Amino acid sequence: MSLNIKKIGVLTSGGDSPGMNAAIRAVVRASAFHNIECIGIYRGYQGMIEGDFKEMNARSVNNIINKGGTILKSARSKDFMTKEGRKQAHKNLLENNIDALVVIGGNGSFTGGLIFNEEYDFPVIGIPGTIDNDIYGTSFTLGYDTALNTVVEVIDKIRDTASSHNRLFFVEVMGRDAGHIALNAGIGAGAEEILIPEEDMGLDRLLDSLRKSKASGKSSSIVVIAEGDKIGKNVFELKDYVEENLPEYDVRVSILGHMQRGGTPSCFDRVLASRLGVKAVETLLEGKSNYMVGLLKDEIVLTPLEQAVKGKSQIEKELIRVSDIVSI
Amino acid sequence: MSLNIKKIGVLTSGGDSPGMNAAIRAVVRASAFHNIECIGIYRGYQGMIEGDFKEMNARSVNNIINKGGTILKSARSKDFMTKEGRKQAHKNLLENNIDALVVIGGNGSFTGGLIFNEEYDFPVIGIPGTIDNDIYGTSFTLGYDTALNTVVEVIDKIRDTASSHNRLFFVEVMGRDAGHIALNAGIGAGAEEILIPEEDMGLDRLLDSLRKSKASGKSSSIVVIAEGDKIGKNVFELKDYVEENLPEYDVRVSILGHMQRGGTPSCFDRVLASRLGVKAVETLLEGKSNYMVGLLKDEIVLTPLEQAVKGKSQIEKELIRVSDIVSI
Amino acid sequence: MSLNIKKIGVLTSGGDSPGMNAAIRAVVRASAFHNIECIGIYRGYQGMIEGDFKEMNARSVNNIINKGGTILKSARSKDFMTKEGRKQAHKNLLENNIDALVVIGGNGSFTGGLIFNEEYDFPVIGIPGTIDNDIYGTSFTLGYDTALNTVVEVIDKIRDTASSHNRLFFVEVMGRDAGHIALNAGIGAGAEEILIPEEDMGLDRLLDSLRKSKASGKSSSIVVIAEGDKIGKNVFELKDYVEENLPEYDVRVSILGHMQRGGTPSCFDRVLASRLGVKAVETLLEGKSNYMVGLLKDEIVLTPLEQAVKGKSQIEKELIRVSDIVSI
Amino acid sequence: MSLNIKKIGVLTSGGDSPGMNAAIRAVVRASAFHNIECIGIYRGYQGMIEGDFKEMNARSVNNIINKGGTILKSARSKDFMTKEGRKQAHKNLLENNIDALVVIGGNGSFTGGLIFNEEYDFPVIGIPGTIDNDIYGTSFTLGYDTALNTVVEVIDKIRDTASSHNRLFFVEVMGRDAGHIALNAGIGAGAEEILIPEEDMGLDRLLDSLRKSKASGKSSSIVVIAEGDKIGKNVFELKDYVEENLPEYDVRVSILGHMQRGGTPSCFDRVLASRLGVKAVETLLEGKSNYMVGLLKDEIVLTPLEQAVKGKSQIEKELIRVSDIVSI
Repeated sequence: MSLNIKKIGVLTSGGDSPGMNAAIRAVVRASAFHNIECIGIYRGYQGMIEGDFKEMNARSVNNIINKGGTILKSARSKDFMTKEGRKQAHKNLLENNIDALVVIGGNGSFTGGLIFNEEYDFPVIGIPGTIDNDIYGTSFTLGYDTALNTVVEVIDKIRDTASSHNRLFFVEVMGRDAGHIALNAGIGAGAEEILIPEEDMGLDRLLDSLRKSKASGKSSSIVVIAEGDKIGKNVFELKDYVEENLPEYDVRVSILGHMQRGGTPSCFDRVLASRLGVKAVETLLEGKSNYMVGLLKDEIVLTPLEQAVKGKSQIEKELIRVSDIVSI
Repeated sequence: MSLNIKKIGVLTSGGDSPGMNAAIRAVVRASAFHNIECIGIYRGYQGMIEGDFKEMNARSVNNIINKGGTILKSARSKDFMTKEGRKQAHKNLLENNIDALVVIGGNGSFTGGLIFNEEYDFPVIGIPGTIDNDIYGTSFTLGYDTALNTVVEVIDKIRDTASSHNRLFFVEVMGRDAGHIALNAGIGAGAEEILIPEEDMGLDRLLDSLRKSKASGKSSSIVVIAEGDKIGKNVFELKDYVEENLPEYDVRVSILGHMQRGGTPSCFDRVLASRLGVKAVETLLEGKSNYMVGLLKDEIVLTPLEQAVKGKSQIEKELIRVSDIVSI
Repeated sequence: MSLNIKKIGVLTSGGDSPGMNAAIRAVVRASAFHNIECIGIYRGYQGMIEGDFKEMNARSVNNIINKGGTILKSARSKDFMTKEGRKQAHKNLLENNIDALVVIGGNGSFTGGLIFNEEYDFPVIGIPGTIDNDIYGTSFTLGYDTALNTVVEVIDKIRDTASSHNRLFFVEVMGRDAGHIALNAGIGAGAEEILIPEEDMGLDRLLDSLRKSKASGKSSSIVVIAEGDKIGKNVFELKDYVEENLPEYDVRVSILGHMQRGGTPSCFDRVLASRLGVKAVETLLEGKSNYMVGLLKDEIVLTPLEQAVKGKSQIEKELIRVSDIVSI
Repeated sequence: MSLNIKKIGVLTSGGDSPGMNAAIRAVVRASAFHNIECIGIYRGYQGMIEGDFKEMNARSVNNIINKGGTILKSARSKDFMTKEGRKQAHKNLLENNIDALVVIGGNGSFTGGLIFNEEYDFPVIGIPGTIDNDIYGTSFTLGYDTALNTVVEVIDKIRDTASSHNRLFFVEVMGRDAGHIALNAGIGAGAEEILIPEEDMGLDRLLDSLRKSKASGKSSSIVVIAEGDKIGKNVFELKDYVEENLPEYDVRVSILGHMQRGGTPSCFDRVLASRLGVKAVETLLEGKSNYMVGLLKDEIVLTPLEQAVKGKSQIEKELIRVSDIVSI
């Protein structure tokens, strides 16, 4: 165990996700358990630059494991993209005797951490927190499981009304570059079709699929669409296109939006957050730096932060086939 | 008890709402209890015209009390607006020995029932089923209480992320002509401002309110907006307007849409549906017609259907004042 | 408006219930709105005796409207049942310049308030907060609606497994003296029988009802039992009795317990809490005392506290009949 | 692909679990996709003996993916433990031209399938469906993830009231032989202590832990206890023991019971069920038999059924350590 780490700073950065508070709690309590100090840094890197720090002890994180959002707040910091900003941030850390950072966030946040580490050789460990599940080196990011449940619960409600009126719904979910949410929530919600950024199914196949769905006797249909799907039309253009080509369909659009980022975390996300938070602190105490902690093949593992940032998280192609089969 | 009613037809019409299934169940079982027959009419008045009927007994409605949507499906019927359509519908009812109708729906559905009654002197009882709560003669329509819970649950999630990023959210909820959902869910969700069709608060007051909200130290804000608010801009124009005039705000928009119509009904809606369904059947058996059953001042009461259709449901003005106070 | 009230103390007492925080928020913010001070008194009357006070402003109650429990904590105070205890409490109030009290709780808490008022002529307003809905002068107590939803959600889950195994479940819910929860949640959950303290249905009728339920082709049954039902056996004895007399039934028991007191309040409870909290403060400012605020026949009304304590809240007998009909 | 499989029978057996319906749907639709027939066998092995069969096509499983329980019902069959019972079952399968079986259930159900296979060389594939997660060869059984969410949601509610009254709660969860639910839901719910069948923490350590918890300034505590914990006292004896030894604690007991088996499945369980159902059918079509399909290390894999039955699922010991750390 490294003798050097006496005080850890923890921050959340980028889009918030359910489970971030559980991870903060785990970092704070693992610090207390190992008798080191822990400082909460507010509003991500911006708060680091502005010195928005607060000492945290085991009791500071009471009753937050089940809260969505992040008690440390989050922000995107333009200042941290400048050398001056990072210099000021480093100065603040030194003045507060902070020896190491735990950064909870996504790729952008990790990139910030990497650059900071390169410039100041400052120990950094990343915890993957984003609902998009688009981070290399972990099968699950914090908040992803909760977001999936939020999406299927909402589509279950939409299905009630779709089914009562024999309607077709286009439901847009988050995922500008990654189809994880659309693909998994689409299967979970029993969607007839799923459009994702990773695959271009083409407009013809969509029409074809909807025709088949009607022919097979289905009384209503749900199409789940990731924000960044490859089909080249936004969801309202898509609605118009389908209604022109399949006049038998009455299409409704629902854009789920930011509700997907919030909510009480699922048990899975809380447990994952607890494990990753403990591992992050103990990795620093072992004298290691520049790693992301993650869950891969049922085990908590370390991935070099650089690899995490550069690597590309892949959707499971098998799921596309499963979706085709179970939506028959 | 009227000796004439031997067989009741029940249908759901217009937009579906949670609790409709519980009401169908109550109508079917009250019929069984009183030893009369009950016919389910599918897809509202359209199914009445097309003869889409199905006999129902007490077991046909097992395990539906907790299901959203309507097992009888719903539809808006243009054919029923024509004399020929209604003539065909009447013929079908006679051929199936149906003596009376229970119509579960909103104002449009009741108007259809009224016209049908005028033309054919056919007994009709209405049960108010719509999430909008915009029906005269009842303090609560079926599905309204559930929709309020759906909206506050979603805004709770949005609040998590709003609060983590110090953001302002505009949340659009259903209510083209009635502000009940916006006003009650807005108070329930702790909204900073609420825009409803019944009142024009004016753009200046909105800006003023948001300025005060910031000044008072609130870190995030939610504005709940009914579809049909009087402010004369759609929600995206409103966002632009606010961002221009209050550049300190970063506004996000969320349109809740059809999810508000679905979902497992609340206990309140299930009990209300059970009471109204029983009352509807027993009112017919007492030889009465052309009434809506409703809940007013804690009691199940009858309102002449014509009055229900012509009357205007009022929002509780007191709530606007309460909202102003508790959002300080 | 009374010139005398400059500072209000607010406390929660007795069993906690969802909506108490929303009521505290409304009391605090209504005080701020009317430019008077507000003091939070912790742990009910016990905290009043121990001087466990904290100043509260509009920001002290941010983000609590959706939280179960009570941020002011609750307790049952034996000391407050003594003259010395109340004397000390009064001394503390005077020393802190507190002019009036808002007591959120049930009958026991109101009785304490009444006695205190008699002895010291201290202005007291009560807000009915208990899940049991057993308070005279209001159709709904805070937390009751939420508890009903909690109970039906749990029974919905139990129904899944009951129905998969063709089993009979006895579900015990709260209600030592009042059957409101059992009766309403029983109807809402589609229970085959409901046992409540107000009525003694007798063991024979229960057996009879279960026999009929089986004969009618139902594959599973739920009996909802209030803690204080009149049938004279506890739920496990009842199970044994039924299994002896109806060997075709395999009975399972589920006692819901304290989970019924917790959870995110429903929209209904949040709005009700907001209205009652505002009304409580404004009633004090009008120079009135010794009232309970409540919701009766769709309106916020005042009931003399003494009457609220002595009166008996009645179940709606009509619901027993409705339950018999819809469970056919 | 085997030319022999033309018709598959699918059944659910043992305790039901959320996700079973999603698995039935996937089996039925994968059969339709591969142009083979599918027969639903009701009430598990008992229905197989009684010939309780029903043809199923893709539309038979509409709108069940989100339903708890099992539409095929489940039962424990004593007759199937006899040679005569199995002989009759085999006769029924042959008479209905059923070529292979998919058994959704736990260890007992798989054992039945194994014996049946040995006696009649009948192709069998198992899908692990039980909330207990106690099956070798899969990291997740169907329903386990949902049960974890159910438990943490209930404990969140209990925490509200525990925290309002500074109380200690003992919450008993399912798990006679396996501590998976207790351990994971315990961490997820932020439990102060967790008692599981796999470890005997000893009464002294429990008392010690509760003393520390109080000393550390925690205002309330939750102890999660698996039914089959090793501490040698039932939960009520444990309550008495703790209250005798730690009179500062006021202990409440909550036994969650059967609600843990029901409820709408989580997205995770729905996706898992879809994948396992498809894999089960395709494994049979590849001419393989006597396997269980499962999810191990992020991949869908086959485990010989015999191994699945004999192997012992292990809790993750790391989690005990994590729990100790995050509950500090």
